Amino acid sequence: METLEKPYVAGIDIGGQTTKMGIVDTRGQVLSQTVIRTDNYDDVNLYIDEVAGALAKIIGESETEGKIRGIGVGAPNGNYYTGTIENAVNLSWGGTRTIKFAELLSLKMGGLKVALTNDANAAAVGEMTYGAARGMKNFIMITLGTGVGSGIVINGEVVYGHDGFAGELGHTCAVRHNGRLCNCGKTGCLETYCSATGVSRTAREWLDMTDEPSVLRSLDIISSKDVYEAAKEGDRLALKIFDFTGKILGQSFADFVAFSAPEAIVLFGGLARAKEYLYQPVMDAMNASLLPLWRGKIKIVFSQLKESDAAILGASALAWEL
Amino acid sequence: METLEKPYVAGIDIGGQTTKMGIVDTRGQVLSQTVIRTDNYDDVNLYIDEVAGALAKIIGESETEGKIRGIGVGAPNGNYYTGTIENAVNLSWGGTRTIKFAELLSLKMGGLKVALTNDANAAAVGEMTYGAARGMKNFIMITLGTGVGSGIVINGEVVYGHDGFAGELGHTCAVRHNGRLCNCGKTGCLETYCSATGVSRTAREWLDMTDEPSVLRSLDIISSKDVYEAAKEGDRLALKIFDFTGKILGQSFADFVAFSAPEAIVLFGGLARAKEYLYQPVMDAMNASLLPLWRGKIKIVFSQLKESDAAILGASALAWEL
Repeated sequence: METLEKPYVAGIDIGGQTTKMGIVDTRGQVLSQTVIRTDNYDDVNLYIDEVAGALAKIIGESETEGKIRGIGVGAPNGNYYTGTIENAVNLSWGGTRTIKFAELLSLKMGGLKVALTNDANAAAVGEMTYGAARGMKNFIMITLGTGVGSGIVINGEVVYGHDGFAGELGHTCAVRHNGRLCNCGKTGCLETYCSATGVSRTAREWLDMTDEPSVLRSLDIISSKDVYEAAKEGDRLALKIFDFTGKILGQSFADFVAFSAPEAIVLFGGLARAKEYLYQPVMDAMNASLLPLWRGKIKIVFSQLKESDAAILGASALAWEL
Repeated sequence: METLEKPYVAGIDIGGQTTKMGIVDTRGQVLSQTVIRTDNYDDVNLYIDEVAGALAKIIGESETEGKIRGIGVGAPNGNYYTGTIENAVNLSWGGTRTIKFAELLSLKMGGLKVALTNDANAAAVGEMTYGAARGMKNFIMITLGTGVGSGIVINGEVVYGHDGFAGELGHTCAVRHNGRLCNCGKTGCLETYCSATGVSRTAREWLDMTDEPSVLRSLDIISSKDVYEAAKEGDRLALKIFDFTGKILGQSFADFVAFSAPEAIVLFGGLARAKEYLYQPVMDAMNASLLPLWRGKIKIVFSQLKESDAAILGASALAWEL
């Protein structure tokens, strides 16, 4: 009944630099959308004022006033249980405190309900609602971006854990001895190898340690996109970097499968665009590290969501459950 | 209503050597129990005949005829979804086939309902119903026996995964390079270090590699119990073996926490008896490997169930859900 009367939701994806938001219908069509800067503000209240203004604008554009069921937010360090953003040191207005984000935004939006979770969990909900995981009850979403995020779905529900912070698979240990130093303060975390940043680090290390010729050698700063472009040109070092990255990912995936026996692992994010170079090494390493009962049975799939809409869709999908 | 009319359940714990079974009331009291050999039979039908006979005997002893709500079974490689035991190569009547165990036993028991899962999941249900995890909705049960088993509980439900085989944490990778060969065919599995067998292997390796004096040096075959007894006498090598074992366990636990953010990890099984030597190294290593947000917040608790009853209670607890 309520879905019929209020057949639209808003989705907000908060990144370190930009915040994307959109109005979405029940079929997953983004009717209107906009982007604002996240990092223009030190004070969360000023930031929320601008979010509210931008939302009002796209609600107007899509002529959905009074028909919005709720707002879904995907944010770094977002806690589903409490609606807070905690210790989000990568957000200019975040810092080491706890921000009652859902409550603050709801107040500004005239009492509209707000659901909030971390960005990877939001992506998992989006993938389950509109994307590659439709119909799946058990899967693990891995986001390969600046870092490595994860959203775990078991029996059709996102796993939030005891405290709301479950699913930090980017900070499981991929390399135990002499592992790379992570932003979190630990060493050997998966994301130090298998994020976009990790790929750049691998490239830099290997160029410094070997004499192997590579088009990458001429670059001062190497991005994962540079490595991808080089691989497309057949650069052998670039191809080896993806083999290595895929191997580390696949080994870790085998341990994740031993935990929750998912039907599939779904890959999403900038680095996942290199699927033609990642798929086979990931599959090979995962199968070699799996218990025999799972070998050849776990799917690796890549997100099917339109990149520009995916973040908004993921966040908005949360709001259907309000 | 049905609980009032049928206020008893039967629990069966199938181990490689022995099968323990008992009749249990709603308060977790074992009214009568018995043990039979598991390994006297090549044919599962003959084994089930003896199980049924033994069950009938203890039902008679406890005067619970007609009042049994159902039967819960914990078995190696037991699948909750299908009620089957698959590829249980450690059972004399198991082999590499799929046995419809729940169906066969139900037929022999006049149609009584049978629920079946693997032994570690059964232990988790028992701990949640009667033991150290009462009131917990999110915890991980780790059984430290001949191998390392695990039962994962999220939102009060055991995680079975897509195929019924979730929770094989004993076969996650603890040592990536030059890890010990595991029975499963892989190398570096947690259970090659942190099971009773793993502790024996550590003792043998360290005695062979060093000249360190130890009371263990006089033994031909070293069991984990021998190492425990030596530690109690203050044997330095034995103490170091537990430090090492606890460190590997704690490092792995940190990765498990990153997955499901449990309130506690519950330890059970023969090796868990060495809690005075394991607790601190496990805690220290886990906290050192955890993301800051979880440091000092995750409990390590030891099973409180009476050892002789625990396996039966765990299996029987499954039957309440029938």
